[in-house]
Amino acid sequence: MARKVDHNFADECAAAGDAPRIAAAAAFLEMGDRLGITPLIATGEVVTTAELAAAVDLPEAGVRTYCEALESAAIIERAGPADDAFRAVPDFDVIQHQAGFVSWTMNANRPFIEGAREFLSDPGLASGIDLRDGREVAVSSQWMGSKGFYPAALAAIIDAKPAVAVDLGAGTCRLLIEIMQSLPDTKAVGLDLDPGACQAARDAADLAGVGHRLTVVERSIQSIAADPSPLNGAEVIHAGFVFHDMLPGEEDVADQVLANCREALAPGGMMAITEAVPYLRNDRERRFSAIVSYYHRQFMKRRLLTEDEWRDKLVDAGFSNVSSVELAFPTGRLFLARK
Amino acid sequence: MARKVDHNFADECAAAGDAPRIAAAAAFLEMGDRLGITPLIATGEVVTTAELAAAVDLPEAGVRTYCEALESAAIIERAGPADDAFRAVPDFDVIQHQAGFVSWTMNANRPFIEGAREFLSDPGLASGIDLRDGREVAVSSQWMGSKGFYPAALAAIIDAKPAVAVDLGAGTCRLLIEIMQSLPDTKAVGLDLDPGACQAARDAADLAGVGHRLTVVERSIQSIAADPSPLNGAEVIHAGFVFHDMLPGEEDVADQVLANCREALAPGGMMAITEAVPYLRNDRERRFSAIVSYYHRQFMKRRLLTEDEWRDKLVDAGFSNVSSVELAFPTGRLFLARK
Repeated sequence: MARKVDHNFADECAAAGDAPRIAAAAAFLEMGDRLGITPLIATGEVVTTAELAAAVDLPEAGVRTYCEALESAAIIERAGPADDAFRAVPDFDVIQHQAGFVSWTMNANRPFIEGAREFLSDPGLASGIDLRDGREVAVSSQWMGSKGFYPAALAAIIDAKPAVAVDLGAGTCRLLIEIMQSLPDTKAVGLDLDPGACQAARDAADLAGVGHRLTVVERSIQSIAADPSPLNGAEVIHAGFVFHDMLPGEEDVADQVLANCREALAPGGMMAITEAVPYLRNDRERRFSAIVSYYHRQFMKRRLLTEDEWRDKLVDAGFSNVSSVELAFPTGRLFLARK
Repeated sequence: MARKVDHNFADECAAAGDAPRIAAAAAFLEMGDRLGITPLIATGEVVTTAELAAAVDLPEAGVRTYCEALESAAIIERAGPADDAFRAVPDFDVIQHQAGFVSWTMNANRPFIEGAREFLSDPGLASGIDLRDGREVAVSSQWMGSKGFYPAALAAIIDAKPAVAVDLGAGTCRLLIEIMQSLPDTKAVGLDLDPGACQAARDAADLAGVGHRLTVVERSIQSIAADPSPLNGAEVIHAGFVFHDMLPGEEDVADQVLANCREALAPGGMMAITEAVPYLRNDRERRFSAIVSYYHRQFMKRRLLTEDEWRDKLVDAGFSNVSSVELAFPTGRLFLARK
């Protein structure tokens, strides 16, 4: 019985754009993260509400109502004639990718929104990076990064066909596992400080059948300044969003890590650094670039380097053929350099 | 020096869509809300960082850095040659409207995201509506509603040219003030339980030069069941998002309020109800409709009525010529009925 009024209905709908859809998906997926359900849906497998309820230790009635809401939201769909079996919709990966931007910006960094008055009142406040919930940062970053952080790095590294690839700040070694799956003779070394991420990396590599080619090292990036032995034999070294965490306070350490990378690389070897660069001005990136830059500078007290500063730093470390690649991930750049 | 890789850069950018932009704007505007700056920018007036700093009692250096980040995000722009004078960009209203959806869904209702496990574990939990921060609900609703809630109601009511219009749950009486500005002979009665909203309504009406035609009544909607005197002489009665708050627990009260509205209306008078309807399935509305419906049902323990249920309720109350209007605000409908 609904009729549309013709005054400016279309304009009003256009004004909201995708905001209602994107916000709703982010809320449903974050809620599902707290319930333990989102990762089970993300597999793409068919699951019943009884299986989900058992897996996450919740009453089936509650899980069913949640799934029915997700179905009505077109985040999952019914699988077959049974009314209690569901699977992710075909574009679930895109929905989760978009939700990641909202979740990282609005929730993982929420202490900065709520604490803004305190930080702006006292410029001498120390870095607020530890105010954040590390798990929420990791989950939202994984959602954001699923399509955006590393495709260009992956393509460049596979093209280089290294005998040994090292990833500094490897997390769960998703990048290295993909590289080894594409290059059957390549070995890899993943370095990360987080014990849970290291164990998850070993498990994921075993599951992918490449565990015998992966060495996981539980160490800080900074430790490479004093002991570069994990880099031995590397033909490619990648570092994703880890160098900026040393700036400005540990710039000498960062420079030594970079020097040691160059030293360890085989002749012709490649350094690949994925980083956020500050305050870009182009239409596609400027708004997200601004919040990333502002969070880092004002609240985390980190200095992001510009493209020119990265080029200078790589040249100063003795690298040549420095280039940068624009990433789909807004404000992200991949810097490539040769020994 | 950036070069684009051609593998699937465009597809990867398309996958993120507007999510990075929308998320960043929501974070900046929420932060500005906590700082007190967002309402000052929203006026559209040129402001200097010194004026802003004085108005919100913060050091100018901090306000300046924040404004520079907003400028880089294309949320404000420089006004003139001075580097410390800014004003909102021309599409600021659209940016704030979109941010409202994110802010309402991801922040104002956050207790439901974080508390999901508790609510799903115990179906007997009482309504969680009071877990929310009322101010955050009001601010995000105002941002969302700026373009979406009431244009259709406004058009229909202006078309009816009532001598007296009443709004139940009038908030700051924005709808009534607009009606009186369009109809110079119309008087209005705004009813709201919140003393702060009532005072703001009086101030806004005075500022708009229509204060002598507005009566503000500080009462609950429920009180109309026992004492309908504020409805006397009404030719139009509007109620926006207030009836569902009485369902299911106070359905008899809601029915009596509706009956009293019909009784009080002049012959041919119009009842106009703006409401959220549950679990719509069309592409435009289904995702946001699902989160609105799920929040209300699972956490606030409210029952939203379908379009058919609203039509039946209005017919049962003795109204005729019931129709519904699709709103740009997703999952919103305007129900119109005649005495």
